[in-house]
Amino acid sequence: MKMTIVVHSGDLDKVMSALILGNGILAMGGDVTLYFTFWGLQRLVRGRFSKAPLSKMHFMGLGKWMMVQRMKKNRVAEPERLMEDFKALGGRVIACEMTMELMGLSKDQMNDQWIDHYGAVGSYVKETENADNTLFI
Amino acid sequence: MKMTIVVHSGDLDKVMSALILGNGILAMGGDVTLYFTFWGLQRLVRGRFSKAPLSKMHFMGLGKWMMVQRMKKNRVAEPERLMEDFKALGGRVIACEMTMELMGLSKDQMNDQWIDHYGAVGSYVKETENADNTLFI
Amino acid sequence: MKMTIVVHSGDLDKVMSALILGNGILAMGGDVTLYFTFWGLQRLVRGRFSKAPLSKMHFMGLGKWMMVQRMKKNRVAEPERLMEDFKALGGRVIACEMTMELMGLSKDQMNDQWIDHYGAVGSYVKETENADNTLFI
Repeated sequence: MKMTIVVHSGDLDKVMSALILGNGILAMGGDVTLYFTFWGLQRLVRGRFSKAPLSKMHFMGLGKWMMVQRMKKNRVAEPERLMEDFKALGGRVIACEMTMELMGLSKDQMNDQWIDHYGAVGSYVKETENADNTLFI
Repeated sequence: MKMTIVVHSGDLDKVMSALILGNGILAMGGDVTLYFTFWGLQRLVRGRFSKAPLSKMHFMGLGKWMMVQRMKKNRVAEPERLMEDFKALGGRVIACEMTMELMGLSKDQMNDQWIDHYGAVGSYVKETENADNTLFI
Repeated sequence: MKMTIVVHSGDLDKVMSALILGNGILAMGGDVTLYFTFWGLQRLVRGRFSKAPLSKMHFMGLGKWMMVQRMKKNRVAEPERLMEDFKALGGRVIACEMTMELMGLSKDQMNDQWIDHYGAVGSYVKETENADNTLFI
């Protein structure tokens, strides 16, 4: 299975969900491309990966610290580790150039070692034309 | 058409959207699997289904009470009823075990009668490999 | 490639993302149907298109005004223009009738010139059965 995932949200739990799904597909022999855009692109800026807020973090009284403690206790990989695993398993990352221009970001501010390609919506479309499935997160 | 839907959000309107789409596909002869994870999984905990907040509920001045009144007036099924219909129409529900561990939830706290399978991301991937389409909600 | 997109969110950045992806696919020779429902449907009400809030607008200190300035400077089309382009490129728009009833909206309140069809979930399912891919935004 080949999957492309638009990572529009920058919320930590949603970026984690994108990576957990992506790593699951890669581990089972599939191909995955993540297209980081809008707030999701912020997670590719150096030093900002783990600074993402948890969406609805007050909703169930489970704050970010608590979440990280439970993740450690249950051996769930932390977000940076999920990203490193994604790359090690052969996952592909596209950074949205339009968002970079809108946010005033340059390549030297980005976690360039994670990024395979800087492109616009046409890159997403081409990847998706050859994919079996696509998600918007 | 076979569809798998990741229910990541726990917002009432998004869970309703997942069920309305799912029931529509089932009613037209398709197959649907809902994979409840993160905040979405909270909706499978006993007693919490209708306690979900409406996302953006203040946005248009249409509060939860108002929404429920209008739903009654317009004969739109209430959330629990949508879930009962989903099961009656043959829909399949997977509960994400990783989220249960993270949230410290055990099976006896869950609405077990709705759940067909407790599984991890591999269950989602297998279902999606055989599906025509997939959504992330 | 034929794509159907459920536009559930009414957030300006998400509606823009739906239109940018849709226009990209249309520009490369594909077919796209947008199914506006729940908060997304609000964007089809006359006079409300650009009144959408930016989701997470405080998150990175980039407010709506700043976003619009940067969009102008970088020649990114404004939301209404994206919608006009979508229609000019042959994109198709379905307005969810169930949401209209829930919200108490009538057709004469809608931006009718953008809407190809008023329908319920069955319209989405039929479009998606013939589509290669589908997204939920």
